Amino acid sequence: MSVPAQPDPYQRAVKRFSRAAKLGAARSLLNWDARTYMPPGGAWARGEEMATLTEVVAELIGSRAADDELSEAEAMAGALAPDERADLAEMRRLFIHAAAVPPELLAAKARLAERLQAVWAEARRERDFARFAAPFAELLVVIREIAAAKAEALGTSPYGALIDEFDPGVGEAMIEPVFADLASFLPPLLAEVRERQAVWPAPAPLGPVAAERQAALAMRLAEAVGHLPEHMRIDATLHPFSVPGMPGDVRFTTRYEAANPRFSIMAVLHEAGHAMYELGLPRPLAFRAAGQARGMTVHESQSLTLEMLAGRSREFLGFLAPVMAETFGGGDTWSFANVLNAWRRLDEGVIRVEADEIAYPLHVILRYRLERALLAGELTPDDLPGAWDELSEALLGRRPANVSEGCLQDIHWAAGHIGYFPNYAMGAMLAAQFFERATADDPQLLPALSRGDFGPYFAWVRPRIHARASLVGVEALVRDATGAPLSAEAFKRHVRRRYLEEPLGWRV
Amino acid sequence: MSVPAQPDPYQRAVKRFSRAAKLGAARSLLNWDARTYMPPGGAWARGEEMATLTEVVAELIGSRAADDELSEAEAMAGALAPDERADLAEMRRLFIHAAAVPPELLAAKARLAERLQAVWAEARRERDFARFAAPFAELLVVIREIAAAKAEALGTSPYGALIDEFDPGVGEAMIEPVFADLASFLPPLLAEVRERQAVWPAPAPLGPVAAERQAALAMRLAEAVGHLPEHMRIDATLHPFSVPGMPGDVRFTTRYEAANPRFSIMAVLHEAGHAMYELGLPRPLAFRAAGQARGMTVHESQSLTLEMLAGRSREFLGFLAPVMAETFGGGDTWSFANVLNAWRRLDEGVIRVEADEIAYPLHVILRYRLERALLAGELTPDDLPGAWDELSEALLGRRPANVSEGCLQDIHWAAGHIGYFPNYAMGAMLAAQFFERATADDPQLLPALSRGDFGPYFAWVRPRIHARASLVGVEALVRDATGAPLSAEAFKRHVRRRYLEEPLGWRV
Repeated sequence: MSVPAQPDPYQRAVKRFSRAAKLGAARSLLNWDARTYMPPGGAWARGEEMATLTEVVAELIGSRAADDELSEAEAMAGALAPDERADLAEMRRLFIHAAAVPPELLAAKARLAERLQAVWAEARRERDFARFAAPFAELLVVIREIAAAKAEALGTSPYGALIDEFDPGVGEAMIEPVFADLASFLPPLLAEVRERQAVWPAPAPLGPVAAERQAALAMRLAEAVGHLPEHMRIDATLHPFSVPGMPGDVRFTTRYEAANPRFSIMAVLHEAGHAMYELGLPRPLAFRAAGQARGMTVHESQSLTLEMLAGRSREFLGFLAPVMAETFGGGDTWSFANVLNAWRRLDEGVIRVEADEIAYPLHVILRYRLERALLAGELTPDDLPGAWDELSEALLGRRPANVSEGCLQDIHWAAGHIGYFPNYAMGAMLAAQFFERATADDPQLLPALSRGDFGPYFAWVRPRIHARASLVGVEALVRDATGAPLSAEAFKRHVRRRYLEEPLGWRV
Repeated sequence: MSVPAQPDPYQRAVKRFSRAAKLGAARSLLNWDARTYMPPGGAWARGEEMATLTEVVAELIGSRAADDELSEAEAMAGALAPDERADLAEMRRLFIHAAAVPPELLAAKARLAERLQAVWAEARRERDFARFAAPFAELLVVIREIAAAKAEALGTSPYGALIDEFDPGVGEAMIEPVFADLASFLPPLLAEVRERQAVWPAPAPLGPVAAERQAALAMRLAEAVGHLPEHMRIDATLHPFSVPGMPGDVRFTTRYEAANPRFSIMAVLHEAGHAMYELGLPRPLAFRAAGQARGMTVHESQSLTLEMLAGRSREFLGFLAPVMAETFGGGDTWSFANVLNAWRRLDEGVIRVEADEIAYPLHVILRYRLERALLAGELTPDDLPGAWDELSEALLGRRPANVSEGCLQDIHWAAGHIGYFPNYAMGAMLAAQFFERATADDPQLLPALSRGDFGPYFAWVRPRIHARASLVGVEALVRDATGAPLSAEAFKRHVRRRYLEEPLGWRV
């Protein structure tokens, strides 16, 4: 009697983890719908549905059965191809995260974070930090427990373990020198640029522009970037986001502010960058562990390249200005000189999401230092407002007027996201490093942008970043693409060039 | 040492089946998105995601663990409240369906049905039955195996087992006498009404009406019925449908045909009826087995009451005509006389979805007889075109001009849906039976409809049908609400009254 052929342990693990990825994609879609089209009365049930998907995924990939399959596959890893070994290693990493923490602890975190987000919204509205502090302390206790459990399983620091979940390979050893470098380089640069800009004429106001016209431009920009309606759509939401993990469907969202049409342009370029990365992941590896984007720093490098490096370049603005004039109507506002003036101005505020390209990493460093101290217990929530204000003064040279513009401005901590902020700044570094190399490798890249043509850029980035998905670690990815480890050097050259050396538009 | 409290087996089963229902709701949303907003390039991945959800649900509720929990709970059922016992019985039924059929067989059916739907579309376009017959025969073999396995597990006939999946309690013993009654009653009635209408003047054409105006009316009608924007939305799709199983979110779709605005009005009333049923299910039983709609016949009774009984009533048309004039513009077309004339006309065609209220059940009976014979092997696919034409002649007095208007007109069989058709006609019977009783119980119900007020109707139906969900079987539900078992009597009285006795609008 013959025994029916049993797929090998690697194939069984692939099947299990692919199923988990498909359920994760379903969860992505449910979240997208909750923010776009869901009638508000569906919120309770939607929360239940999404929580169930999260639980089922965790059980699927964090189970004893998953562990056994992976162990068997690892024992015969010699027989696997290199890409399969990379895939196996990624599955093991996902298993460790799913198995390290008891489900009750994750459920406790989810419950506390959900409550705290409501408290945060109130506290921010009332400028009342006191009501936030105690429940935040409670959440921190649980997050510390989770971080300790994951650190134990991964062999990292607790903070590093939290990062590893969505940004493996970008640990404190990589972050620390970059942030130290920026913390000393950027504040004097900020002052220098501020002085240069002091004599500039005020730009003509950019709004108002009706949402329909902004939407028309959004689609035009997305298509200029390289998107096809067959694979994407753009919807309007309060906070722009792109939807990861759904192969062949890389929809994203933006927000149309009548008074500030620049907001949606930046948001569309940003999200279109995320979406191009998802679209460029290798189709044969769809739903596979090694077929996913490499992590949030690399993801952010892809969005920031389009938003910041390419999207704010003199070349691209030369293309954008007449397109805005054509789409929005209203002549002089969209002259190249006025656009460049508006696009280059430093922000003078204390709000991260409104910060300019130079101040932005400093906002992130502020949060990084505080959240590490909070996690380590070196800082208590009660200390937060004071510590925030001091660090803001030291890094940005200004203090928030109140807690709502200070340590309560972001939702991340209330949502339990500790360890997430660094990738915003690390992504900016990586974007500059990739872009510098790409423009050096292909001298036609920048001239093409002045025609709104992103083809040369994507021809450079696709094989080097997108096509490699999670088949290699972030260190190898960066070194192979740029010949150097990730650092702040390219970013520093970039901001000096753009903000101190670039000729001024209105004297051209 | 104390053992941690373990929830009782009934509660464990509830948790398991609720999780399955939540995953089912996620699947519903994915399907909605696939038909509304998904970019076409996402189709392959969406198929994978939906198939995975189906598999995971089947494993969850068809597993040995589910069986054990249910058995333990059944052993102590004496300690349960009556509603809990009903819930337990529903969970057992769901288990039987999930466990009866090996997953490979379901996968084989899904594969064959997916392929056959593409073949069907081609065959219909080419009027070429031959290419459909062989793959349909292959699918039938698999469906017979599934039906046999389920019949064995449920103790029903194979055809009854297929019905039981979505319409438990409506077996052949209930269907057979009703269909026999209709098959003898309706053909002579059709002839009589046709004769009466032969002398009617032709109604003025109703179109064209722009989609935006039709959409405005659609929302107005939905709100008249009792829907709130907080709990629903209406989108445009090729085939109208409503989305079940998402508590608090009862969105549905319609189609706007410029030349035929009546189509969307009927579709909106129909889907709004389904959606009101879902909205009326008891919130404390959300995601519970006994908290779901009772089955497709009852569901269809709720949609057809709004579309046919209330929505085509003289009273409601008296409300609708001036509203259409106001929303659509264009005077005389929307006179009560013209509207009544257009709404009452018999259809002369052979297409089920375009059939009038009298012919419709005959279309269903035709399919019911043929699909039973196909399942039993008394008829082969090759015999189908001939058998269809003969039965069409016998029941409707007309034959299709070709197979595309005959046995290839519906997608159901190509999709593997055998046993689904009867509920369309059984629902029509039940709608008439409920409506007759409701209007007798509340003499204000019909006058309220002439003001566009559905309040009295829902005040009658909510406690009797919606609130009882699946807490009782369909027989008890019908008897408690109407004092009689389900039959064709009320429907027969209804169509005679409306089509032979009602005064004619244009002589009023």
